[in-house]
Amino acid sequence: MSAPEESAGVSRRGLLGWAIGTGVAGLAVGAGAATAVAATQAGGAPVDEFAFEGPHQAGITTRVQDHLHFASFDMMPHASRDDLVSLLQDWSYAASRMAKGLDVSASGAVGGSPEAPPDDTGEAQGLGATGLTITFGLGPALFETEGDRFGIAARRPAVLVGLPAFVGDALDAAYTGGDLCIQACADDPQVAVHAIRNLSRIAFGRARLRWSQLGFGRTSRTSAEQQTPRNLFGFKDGTANILADDAKALAAHVWVGERDEPAWMAGGSYLVARKIAMLVETWDRLRLSEQDRTIGRAKGSGAPLSGGEEFTEPSFHGGRIDTNAHVRLAHPTVNDGVQILRRGYNYVDGNSDLGTLDAGLFFLSYQRTPEQFIGIQKRLSTDLMSEYIRHIGSGVWAIPPGAQKGSYVGAGLFA
Amino acid sequence: MSAPEESAGVSRRGLLGWAIGTGVAGLAVGAGAATAVAATQAGGAPVDEFAFEGPHQAGITTRVQDHLHFASFDMMPHASRDDLVSLLQDWSYAASRMAKGLDVSASGAVGGSPEAPPDDTGEAQGLGATGLTITFGLGPALFETEGDRFGIAARRPAVLVGLPAFVGDALDAAYTGGDLCIQACADDPQVAVHAIRNLSRIAFGRARLRWSQLGFGRTSRTSAEQQTPRNLFGFKDGTANILADDAKALAAHVWVGERDEPAWMAGGSYLVARKIAMLVETWDRLRLSEQDRTIGRAKGSGAPLSGGEEFTEPSFHGGRIDTNAHVRLAHPTVNDGVQILRRGYNYVDGNSDLGTLDAGLFFLSYQRTPEQFIGIQKRLSTDLMSEYIRHIGSGVWAIPPGAQKGSYVGAGLFA
Repeated sequence: MSAPEESAGVSRRGLLGWAIGTGVAGLAVGAGAATAVAATQAGGAPVDEFAFEGPHQAGITTRVQDHLHFASFDMMPHASRDDLVSLLQDWSYAASRMAKGLDVSASGAVGGSPEAPPDDTGEAQGLGATGLTITFGLGPALFETEGDRFGIAARRPAVLVGLPAFVGDALDAAYTGGDLCIQACADDPQVAVHAIRNLSRIAFGRARLRWSQLGFGRTSRTSAEQQTPRNLFGFKDGTANILADDAKALAAHVWVGERDEPAWMAGGSYLVARKIAMLVETWDRLRLSEQDRTIGRAKGSGAPLSGGEEFTEPSFHGGRIDTNAHVRLAHPTVNDGVQILRRGYNYVDGNSDLGTLDAGLFFLSYQRTPEQFIGIQKRLSTDLMSEYIRHIGSGVWAIPPGAQKGSYVGAGLFA
Repeated sequence: MSAPEESAGVSRRGLLGWAIGTGVAGLAVGAGAATAVAATQAGGAPVDEFAFEGPHQAGITTRVQDHLHFASFDMMPHASRDDLVSLLQDWSYAASRMAKGLDVSASGAVGGSPEAPPDDTGEAQGLGATGLTITFGLGPALFETEGDRFGIAARRPAVLVGLPAFVGDALDAAYTGGDLCIQACADDPQVAVHAIRNLSRIAFGRARLRWSQLGFGRTSRTSAEQQTPRNLFGFKDGTANILADDAKALAAHVWVGERDEPAWMAGGSYLVARKIAMLVETWDRLRLSEQDRTIGRAKGSGAPLSGGEEFTEPSFHGGRIDTNAHVRLAHPTVNDGVQILRRGYNYVDGNSDLGTLDAGLFFLSYQRTPEQFIGIQKRLSTDLMSEYIRHIGSGVWAIPPGAQKGSYVGAGLFA
């Protein structure tokens, strides 16, 4: 086994990386540069590399990748402000390298001394970036420490508070909350898992993994070129999502504005995660017409029951869509025009002792303020679908704007 | 909710399907036809459809797909021989359809009556076959029922018995054993999950899901065109695996021969599954030279420590490879020439309360008799790697030969 002082090895190298990077900070991307939105090459073929740096963090409007590893972390009880800053710096440095398909440090999985543990765990060697995005978030608890240990209480966004209780909540502490979160999305699950594993390792002594979730089968889309995927109820999901090229909707509903408070969040967003267990065996015994009525769309085509095809706007007059159909209660027309950008994934965690699948939807949504999600979720209290789902996990995090080159995610909070 | 008699709907349609299929049984594939071995198109591009029928079941020598959903089932206590036969028939019928990217029945997810539950759960609609293979197995317990309920005790393969205890076993009943197993592999995890979910649903009233496992990141290869993947220790895995085009090795080590007992297993194989937890955090703290010594190969290149490149045969003379290195103890030269065909997957099941990953290798191997695995696993009792792994799940199943067109997997057992 190796000497204890090696546990800070990545950190030292990380800081060295920043020192070098700072020299070229003048080359930082200009506001409005749409690096994270360059979702497809000409011809629609997906690109496999997304820049980590930019005005917004990657992994929000980025075309939705096929695989997710999401992780929630808690700061260690003794951790200081310096620990938090250095963690965000080291995480950003490693993330900027992994986004290019590189090891977490320049000495990597096998490039260091044979007599030291490798900086990188190695299982993603040779796989390339495969569309990896890493998105960091800060939870309400981080701003609520005893004695304001991190010195950030005064800079807390007023809207960053724990979510209220909703009808039908069945929350399990094992999938709820966390001081920090990381959303890793990629087209290869091994690349997403590698990212969370290595970022967790880098956090050693400063933060600890609290809970995590793997997801497959995106349940949304952020590009018109992406087909609408299906959730585990067999229905198309994300048909009416905000798309990455809809600058007006993004400005109105997703990005924190220049005039919103606090200023360090401008260009950021707020993430809500909900682990939603789906009682698939019960659902599967519903007759098709009842499944359609519950959602308000036809299972096969995805067309609203009011007529047309998948992308036809639903009409809530004439009674063909039930008052409590999911599509109606989630629709902007009954939510004062409010929209959210969804980015969820299907999950299967094995099965219960009864032989039923532990399966569901890991719901992720980005919005300008968590109040958008809260309003819609309250509206869904009479959703016909509620009988077949349980919200078992929950969290909300502030998503700072993207890092400038040579800086780190969250730098504005500590400036 | 629908009427109870509908729960047998798929079964009735399944039997109808067989009745039609039987009319063309004379067109069944000849012995030796290599339908399941047609792993790649000209140019190396993977094909996305593998025939379910053939002399051998698909999913053994088939090029290893990227995703796994494995499931173990128990027959219900009251189930009869007829129930077992009809289950295998219905499973085979549905599997033959899903292998073509079709719904589990002709009326499918939306094609039936709106007043009945759909036969197919629908989440794989539009995804195609994406290389799906479904492989069925029969466990020792199926032949050991009280009063020989299924009437098959006399036809039991003598080698199909529970595995012995091995040094370092830490088996959990929650991931061990089962009367029947299904290995679903595909290039899209949603397609593999859809297969297990629908086959589980078809089993209703006859068999019940006992345990299941999702896997990603194949840790082996069965085609020279496939790159050697890496396991979660960051090492290339499967370098020296049996390849699908090595007919001599397959005949010697994988397929049950015409002269082996019992005759109904000719063209079949035996599957061993081991859920192997990997203590990745401990492993990651080992210095690189110790990781290399443990495996007996170099982490970066995969070359044996005796020299050369990845595919150079290791030399166990000269002391450069430790006597207890994994590569040596698993090598045919110290196992009387015995080989097995490996087909494992990496898994991550979330994390422990301590913040460590619940991660490892879901080991799958196919062999002509389970004694091949038993011999190698006994040899591995002094494996240097044992300190960093725990076998937490286990199972062994007889894998009957492939179904002939119009027949079903296991038909020979009941003939």
